Amino acid sequence: MSERPITSHDVARLAGVSQSAVSRAFTPGASISAVLRDKVRDAAMRLGYQPNLLPRMMVKGRSGIVAIVVGGGYNPFHAATQEAFSHALQRAGKRIMLVQAQSDRTLDEMVSDIIGYRIDGVVTALSILSQQAADAITAHGIPVVTLNSGITTETIRVVGIDNVGAGREAALHMIARGGSHFAYVGADSIASRAREEGYCAAVTKAGFARPQCLSGTLDYDGGLAVGRRLLNQSERPNAIFCVNDLTAIGIMDAWRMDGGLNFPADAQIIGFDDIPASRWLTNNLTTINQNVEMMAHHAVEIIENLDTYPHLSTRVDFTMIARGSTGKPVS
Amino acid sequence: MSERPITSHDVARLAGVSQSAVSRAFTPGASISAVLRDKVRDAAMRLGYQPNLLPRMMVKGRSGIVAIVVGGGYNPFHAATQEAFSHALQRAGKRIMLVQAQSDRTLDEMVSDIIGYRIDGVVTALSILSQQAADAITAHGIPVVTLNSGITTETIRVVGIDNVGAGREAALHMIARGGSHFAYVGADSIASRAREEGYCAAVTKAGFARPQCLSGTLDYDGGLAVGRRLLNQSERPNAIFCVNDLTAIGIMDAWRMDGGLNFPADAQIIGFDDIPASRWLTNNLTTINQNVEMMAHHAVEIIENLDTYPHLSTRVDFTMIARGSTGKPVS
Repeated sequence: MSERPITSHDVARLAGVSQSAVSRAFTPGASISAVLRDKVRDAAMRLGYQPNLLPRMMVKGRSGIVAIVVGGGYNPFHAATQEAFSHALQRAGKRIMLVQAQSDRTLDEMVSDIIGYRIDGVVTALSILSQQAADAITAHGIPVVTLNSGITTETIRVVGIDNVGAGREAALHMIARGGSHFAYVGADSIASRAREEGYCAAVTKAGFARPQCLSGTLDYDGGLAVGRRLLNQSERPNAIFCVNDLTAIGIMDAWRMDGGLNFPADAQIIGFDDIPASRWLTNNLTTINQNVEMMAHHAVEIIENLDTYPHLSTRVDFTMIARGSTGKPVS
Repeated sequence: MSERPITSHDVARLAGVSQSAVSRAFTPGASISAVLRDKVRDAAMRLGYQPNLLPRMMVKGRSGIVAIVVGGGYNPFHAATQEAFSHALQRAGKRIMLVQAQSDRTLDEMVSDIIGYRIDGVVTALSILSQQAADAITAHGIPVVTLNSGITTETIRVVGIDNVGAGREAALHMIARGGSHFAYVGADSIASRAREEGYCAAVTKAGFARPQCLSGTLDYDGGLAVGRRLLNQSERPNAIFCVNDLTAIGIMDAWRMDGGLNFPADAQIIGFDDIPASRWLTNNLTTINQNVEMMAHHAVEIIENLDTYPHLSTRVDFTMIARGSTGKPVS
């Protein structure tokens, strides 16, 4: 037996196809029928052929790889976002490099780490904390799509919902259902501040006292702690809007288990993100769905056409999901 | 201004360091101090230097990339596994290619898709369904680590817990707390069948009737449906062991919301995986933790040292997490 490495010519000959068909069978997103692809891959397997995309990546100067930079996975919303973005990128023929951020690293450091792979773009739900960090990332010349974030540059684009409008809608929803003492439980992010702004403006415009504003930690335990604080107040809110569903579920559990209270009988509550647990029978939580599929669609558009993409910031529609935790409109 | 591309020599000169330091600053897992790395990256950014790891990948014939192949993200356990594996691989200097499986694709097809990047290995929680699929994957010569799966070959290794032992421990736990009518709610997987086997053997060995065995869909809705079926039976089990936490929470919600029953007063229940929602106050679910960090540690070992790694199948210890849903031991 010869020691000569197996080439795409050998595979083409055995499969009875052109060499171009062999190449397309192993190129992400290339146009090829499933029948032809299977024929090529069968032949490749029988010969032990190992395709190599690296030379092509070098010639093109781009890898076809997009990086998804993720933080902690405690929030099921992140899993849903990652899945939607992965599907959309793979449909566009991209491969995905997953970058799990360490808590002590910032996005600009992460980008330095992966720039050497000549990635086509970066998608992230992490915030960009300063103009300096944004400038450092922009210097790399790579398209970056951030979710519901604030800073944009030539290469950093934002995809998200109208967070001020979502806050306003949450207020109007609970006002229509008899809310009179309002609270907002937020976090330290641009999206949270925008939701708070829209919520508070709508509440005061309707003639009610400005909402009590508290800060949580975005997870269940943070909600539990805030819920216990509210439970021990002399005057409790009867309408609570939360930065995400996990916070809302933590608050509900504190009031139910420690205080014997119920939703919506003792208070209305609204979360954010529409995670699977929000529709569990025990929670039945009214929430706001961000349409991550549409966000993913725009992210792919931006990465593929950065130079001609018209918007620094792209908005997708949100949907209010009315469930039991806010009861029925007062007639 | 010259149009000459910026090289690592230019960066080294500006930073006042060796060219080797520049190279190490952009190589995943390379040994370099944080101070030196920041100095190099600062200079690189000021010059607009774009490192390129692709030539080095070609010379070495390996990319330093490991693929994580994932299925649907509905189960928070998958998010926890992915995070543990990502951290372990990144600590070992690997980059991660995320492959989101389409429901109609099998693992051997997915591997064909990514082989061209000369990946160092594959990690997956997806099952390998047949010896034929296993042979097709083995033909590529790439280390593959699967979780709690069955088939092993020269290149396909399994990391997981003793599922028979975990089933046995669940049975003994509920027997000690007064269980007398047992049920198992499983799924179509090797791990589920092993848990069922250990559970049923321990129950019958203790002199009780063989457990009623039902099949769910691994998600909350599947648990809800099974819970309603059990609720409408003339004789209900008083000790239920489930293939995962989501199934257990669905069953609990059906019994609580539709039947006004409670755990552990009306029945004991045990889940699997120790997802965050299992410790929420409303669920307080006894469960089994699989120690994904240790699984991830072994997966990295296998990928880095496949030829000398001694085991086809590697076991890590599981931990029974006793919570309120199984009550207290009968004295």
